[in-house]
Amino acid sequence: MSEIQAGQTAEFTRTVTEADVVLFAGVTGDLNPAHIDDVWARAGRFGGRIAHGMLSASFISTVLGMKLPGPGTIYLSQSLRFTAPVMIGETVTARVEVAEVLPKRRIRLTTTVVKADGTTIIEGEAMVLAPR
Amino acid sequence: MSEIQAGQTAEFTRTVTEADVVLFAGVTGDLNPAHIDDVWARAGRFGGRIAHGMLSASFISTVLGMKLPGPGTIYLSQSLRFTAPVMIGETVTARVEVAEVLPKRRIRLTTTVVKADGTTIIEGEAMVLAPR
Amino acid sequence: MSEIQAGQTAEFTRTVTEADVVLFAGVTGDLNPAHIDDVWARAGRFGGRIAHGMLSASFISTVLGMKLPGPGTIYLSQSLRFTAPVMIGETVTARVEVAEVLPKRRIRLTTTVVKADGTTIIEGEAMVLAPR
Amino acid sequence: MSEIQAGQTAEFTRTVTEADVVLFAGVTGDLNPAHIDDVWARAGRFGGRIAHGMLSASFISTVLGMKLPGPGTIYLSQSLRFTAPVMIGETVTARVEVAEVLPKRRIRLTTTVVKADGTTIIEGEAMVLAPR
Repeated sequence: MSEIQAGQTAEFTRTVTEADVVLFAGVTGDLNPAHIDDVWARAGRFGGRIAHGMLSASFISTVLGMKLPGPGTIYLSQSLRFTAPVMIGETVTARVEVAEVLPKRRIRLTTTVVKADGTTIIEGEAMVLAPR
Repeated sequence: MSEIQAGQTAEFTRTVTEADVVLFAGVTGDLNPAHIDDVWARAGRFGGRIAHGMLSASFISTVLGMKLPGPGTIYLSQSLRFTAPVMIGETVTARVEVAEVLPKRRIRLTTTVVKADGTTIIEGEAMVLAPR
Repeated sequence: MSEIQAGQTAEFTRTVTEADVVLFAGVTGDLNPAHIDDVWARAGRFGGRIAHGMLSASFISTVLGMKLPGPGTIYLSQSLRFTAPVMIGETVTARVEVAEVLPKRRIRLTTTVVKADGTTIIEGEAMVLAPR
Repeated sequence: MSEIQAGQTAEFTRTVTEADVVLFAGVTGDLNPAHIDDVWARAGRFGGRIAHGMLSASFISTVLGMKLPGPGTIYLSQSLRFTAPVMIGETVTARVEVAEVLPKRRIRLTTTVVKADGTTIIEGEAMVLAPR
C-alpha cells in the first residue's frame, strides 16, 4: 500500500431509511425511544425520530474497510464528535481523507459525515493499519 | 438527573451471531471480506470472520441510551481504541462508568467492551448530555 | 424476587413500522395479504395493511422478560383478545400489571396493548414464573 | 367459507434458526438474555439459548391466516400455555384443528405447537372470524 498519500479521499453515501434504523436498533439492542417511538420523538427535542449516531458513524468504517485503505485494513482507533442529528429519510455521506502516512503501515485519517444539505453531523479522526 | 454520580455503572451483554454481522453489514454497507467472506477470512490474520468493530462499539451507545443516563440522552462524543477482534459467536459486554458529572448536565463516562473471557476489545470515553 | 407486589406496572412503547411488519412476516411465515399486500389491504375491511396481532402481542413478552419480572422469567401462559387492528405506522404501548403474587414464585399479570390514541388493541392475562 | 367443518386441520413447520431469533428479538425488542446471551443461557436452566415463546406462538397465526381459515381471517382471541422451551436449531410444527363452527362465521380451533420429537411446546385455543 505504498501508494497511499496524504490528501487522498474516499466517500460513501446512503439514505438512512426507517428500515435501516429498525434493523440497526434490533442488531445493537439500542431501542432508545428517540429511534423507535414516533409519538415520543415528535414531542421531543428534534421533532421526530432520529437515526442512531453510531449508524452514521459506521459509514466511516465502511469507507475505511471498502475503499481507503480498503479490504484488509485493521481499525485501530476512532474519535467521534456528534454535531447534529440525522432524521429518518435523510441522506448522509461519510468522507475520509488521509492526514498522515506513518511508519509501520499506520495511517491517520480525518473522518467526517455530512448531510446532503452540507450540515456536518460527525467529525473525528481514525487511525488504521493498512493492508500489506 | 441530579442523581447521577461518579462511579455508577451499567452494562449490556450480547452474543454476536452470524445473523447480527450479516444484518450490520447490510445496514452499514461495510462488506469488508473480513466480515462476510469466510474463505478469505479463514486464510487471514484472525483465522475466521470477525464482527465489525463498530457493531461492538454500538453496544456502548445501547447502554448510554437505554440505561445510563438512559432515554433522552444526547450523544456528544465517543473515543474508541480497538484492541482485539471479536469472532462470530463470541459474547461481549459493553460497560459504562460515570467518570465525572460536569456543569450543564454533561457527563463523562469511561466505556469498555470486553469478551466473556475478559479480553478487552474496545476502550474509550464518552461525553453525553443527560436528559432533564 | 420477593419484592414483586400486586399493582406494580411496567411498559414498552414502539412505533410499528413497515420494516417491522415485513421482518415479522419473514420470520414467522405469516404472509397473510392483510399484512403484505397493500392493494388487497386497501380494498379491504381496514383500508390498509395492518400489523400482525402477534407482533403487538409479543411486546407483552418484551415487558415481562426485560422489565417485570425481568430477565430469567419463565413464561407459563398468556391469553389474548384482539379488540382492534394496528395500522402500519401507529405507535403502541404494551403494559403489564401484577395482579397476584402466588406461591412458588408464580405471578399473574393483566396485560394490555394500547395505541397512542388510547384504543385498546389487546387485552389478556399472563402467568409467569419469576426468576429466583 | 361454508365448507369449514369440525375436525379439519392444517399445519406449518419451520426450523427456528439463530437468525430467526435475532430478527425476532430486534423487531419485538425482547432482548432477554435467555435469547441473545449465549454465555448466560448456557449457565442457566435450559443449557443454551431458547427461542422466544411468542415466536413459536406466531406460527399458529401463520396457519390461521394462510391456510385455515386462510386470507381474510380476523383473529379474535388466542390462549397459550407454554409447556416446553425450543432451543435454537430445533424444528417446530404449528397445528390447528377446527373444534367448532359457530354462528356469524366464528370458528373455534384447538392450536398446538410441537417439536419434531413430539414434545408439545404450546397448547391453546383460537377464536377467529372466517373470511366471507
